[in-house]
Amino acid sequence: MFEKTFLQQIADNEKVSLQFLQTQLASGRVVILKNNQREFIRPVAVGGGLKIKINTNIGTSTEKIGQDQELEKLDIALTYGTDTVMDLSTGGDIPEMLDSILARSTVAVGTVPIYEAALNGEKKYGSFDEMRPDEIFDCLDRQGSAGVDFFTIHAGIRREFLKFLKEEKRTAGIVSRGGAILARWMDTNGQENPLYESFDTVLDIAKKYNVTISLGDALRPGALADSTDRGQLAELHTLGELVKRCWKKGVQVMVEGPGHIRIDEVALNMQMQKKICFGAPFYVLGPLTTDIACGYDHITSSIGGAIAALSGADFLCVVTPAEHLRHPDCEDIKLGVIASKIAAHSVDLLRFPDEWERDLKISQARSRRDWPEVFRHCLDKEKAQKYRESAKLSQEDICSMCGTFCSLKLIEKCNLVK
Amino acid sequence: MFEKTFLQQIADNEKVSLQFLQTQLASGRVVILKNNQREFIRPVAVGGGLKIKINTNIGTSTEKIGQDQELEKLDIALTYGTDTVMDLSTGGDIPEMLDSILARSTVAVGTVPIYEAALNGEKKYGSFDEMRPDEIFDCLDRQGSAGVDFFTIHAGIRREFLKFLKEEKRTAGIVSRGGAILARWMDTNGQENPLYESFDTVLDIAKKYNVTISLGDALRPGALADSTDRGQLAELHTLGELVKRCWKKGVQVMVEGPGHIRIDEVALNMQMQKKICFGAPFYVLGPLTTDIACGYDHITSSIGGAIAALSGADFLCVVTPAEHLRHPDCEDIKLGVIASKIAAHSVDLLRFPDEWERDLKISQARSRRDWPEVFRHCLDKEKAQKYRESAKLSQEDICSMCGTFCSLKLIEKCNLVK
Repeated sequence: MFEKTFLQQIADNEKVSLQFLQTQLASGRVVILKNNQREFIRPVAVGGGLKIKINTNIGTSTEKIGQDQELEKLDIALTYGTDTVMDLSTGGDIPEMLDSILARSTVAVGTVPIYEAALNGEKKYGSFDEMRPDEIFDCLDRQGSAGVDFFTIHAGIRREFLKFLKEEKRTAGIVSRGGAILARWMDTNGQENPLYESFDTVLDIAKKYNVTISLGDALRPGALADSTDRGQLAELHTLGELVKRCWKKGVQVMVEGPGHIRIDEVALNMQMQKKICFGAPFYVLGPLTTDIACGYDHITSSIGGAIAALSGADFLCVVTPAEHLRHPDCEDIKLGVIASKIAAHSVDLLRFPDEWERDLKISQARSRRDWPEVFRHCLDKEKAQKYRESAKLSQEDICSMCGTFCSLKLIEKCNLVK
Repeated sequence: MFEKTFLQQIADNEKVSLQFLQTQLASGRVVILKNNQREFIRPVAVGGGLKIKINTNIGTSTEKIGQDQELEKLDIALTYGTDTVMDLSTGGDIPEMLDSILARSTVAVGTVPIYEAALNGEKKYGSFDEMRPDEIFDCLDRQGSAGVDFFTIHAGIRREFLKFLKEEKRTAGIVSRGGAILARWMDTNGQENPLYESFDTVLDIAKKYNVTISLGDALRPGALADSTDRGQLAELHTLGELVKRCWKKGVQVMVEGPGHIRIDEVALNMQMQKKICFGAPFYVLGPLTTDIACGYDHITSSIGGAIAALSGADFLCVVTPAEHLRHPDCEDIKLGVIASKIAAHSVDLLRFPDEWERDLKISQARSRRDWPEVFRHCLDKEKAQKYRESAKLSQEDICSMCGTFCSLKLIEKCNLVK
């Protein structure tokens, strides 16, 4: 599927051997997100034994259709180290926005093609309830030919699940937009999910462009009260079946996961996905460990994301402080990316010498109060510098926190430091 | 030690039975932070089976001596729900600052009395190396009589530990200020730590005012490279001995813990402390799971703090975004308190129905898009409101993130929500 020189480049970036990468790829435990129509600067592999990756969602909404701001968000996400972006646009000209993002992004780009299909349905018929399955597949093909590297496909929500959800009910219903679109379409039309029923058509398109399938979790819990419930688990078992079908057709696949999850169920969720989905890479949104931190969900997500990454998740989706409140602005994107990087790095440093070295070097520099060297290793050098510079100091080698009572300075003559 | 009506009040606040509280108190697994000289509005118990508590450090530094700002920080910490504060002042008039904080604080106040002793030593002799042990005990007595509810006492760092630290060395030496003062004093004077050697004197003073001893971790790792190292563990074993000595004298005691800890060693550290210190309450600073997040250490700390709380920690010390960079300002304090509350609440909701109810109610309200009710349950109502209000919306019951493509709205007619 990929040339050897390309794989060697990925292996080098990842600091793993070519042989390890090839073995993981062959077993499906690793995917490489790259449409065969597209060249870009930072190709990325996701999965077991590799560094934790992060994705940033950008794109317009029906209330915020300015494309320039979305491109600015793309730049910011790249600056702070996102590994991929997803264009989740639902406002304005969808194909035009996607083309602009594909042209500008130096990293892999994902989409949720059902959005475009549903928006077309709204325009054409007045409601997406009227859209026909072949119109959904047309969107997949169009986006694949445009160069999209991975598709979120909500093929795991089946009509029969709606039956028990109507009986058992949830606190937050369905919080996946793709999931909500398909649930209502099935409910209105009395038909099975076309992405499930015609999954082979999805696979043919994915194969044609080498688009990686990211199996969406339409029934991810949107409230802690729905954490790890019957709906979520029923869908997960279906996703496991679909993983096998992807592999049989030679299509790369990863699996998406929750969501709002109780902190004591995060590790369990990671282990279950790895079992039920046969080791396929796991891509999680959050998990958020409480529902009450509106305005600070980047922090809630970094708690859940760090525990998830430690327990087997491979890919973290950025959650911004704007989550649940508004369309994120550029500053929200920056804060979200940094919070996810903290979670990912906290786990990567355990396994990768080059990541560990950053922590070692910053601490050695801090011990010497070598501030320029400290800043060099910071996740956000500018903020750290600005913070330090905001204090007027009586001496160069202290900070205003402890002042001359700096513990590192106090013990200098005791000779305890390497 | 405490009257029954007072204990009943604490038990009611904690949503536990009086009998449970009394059993935990008697076994030393819980402490109540309250100087017998002081009355205040929100007395607090800390320890096993109770809600996770958080402490906020305030106080001047040698570079920032403005007392008004510290009182403003106190107010902010109280507003966002701190359970205790510590006055760590090292700049300006120390007794005056402490008196102001004690007068204004509605919650328990802690100090590190060795700071005042060392500052007095600097003033009197030109260096704290010259201070005499009885001058340290005088400070303890003065602060106890002033009404301080808990003292951090770095009695666990012994002279013999310096010997192997000089041989083995650390990346970040000693990052505890109290620890650094005592290490240098021992090194210069060739004498044992007076707080260890005359621990009975410490206990007599603590007993006199019912001050809870918080055994400081002078050798907590200040870099991931020093995580769970020989120095940290040697001190922890000494703290275990000292816990027994406190209990023998009828003095309440808790134990302080790290610090910069690898994410895969956080749970281990909690379990070890509980074993080695016989179940005494555990009060942790962080733990920080990476060293490279300067400017965002409230987030790093919320990751480590949440895992710590899930694994047995009882009391989280707030880390602000200013950590390692400057003396925190009011906004830093607010962000730090909220990040710690997120960590604490993520664990409390698993165990306490009243905490769980907040998550349930906010999610029920979110499902209905009942925004005023959502805001009512937010950790920071004002920020959430401000975020939402910043978007001009075409409809009242959506937000600008998904706009009219709101999943909750899309599935309304499907009848899946409780």
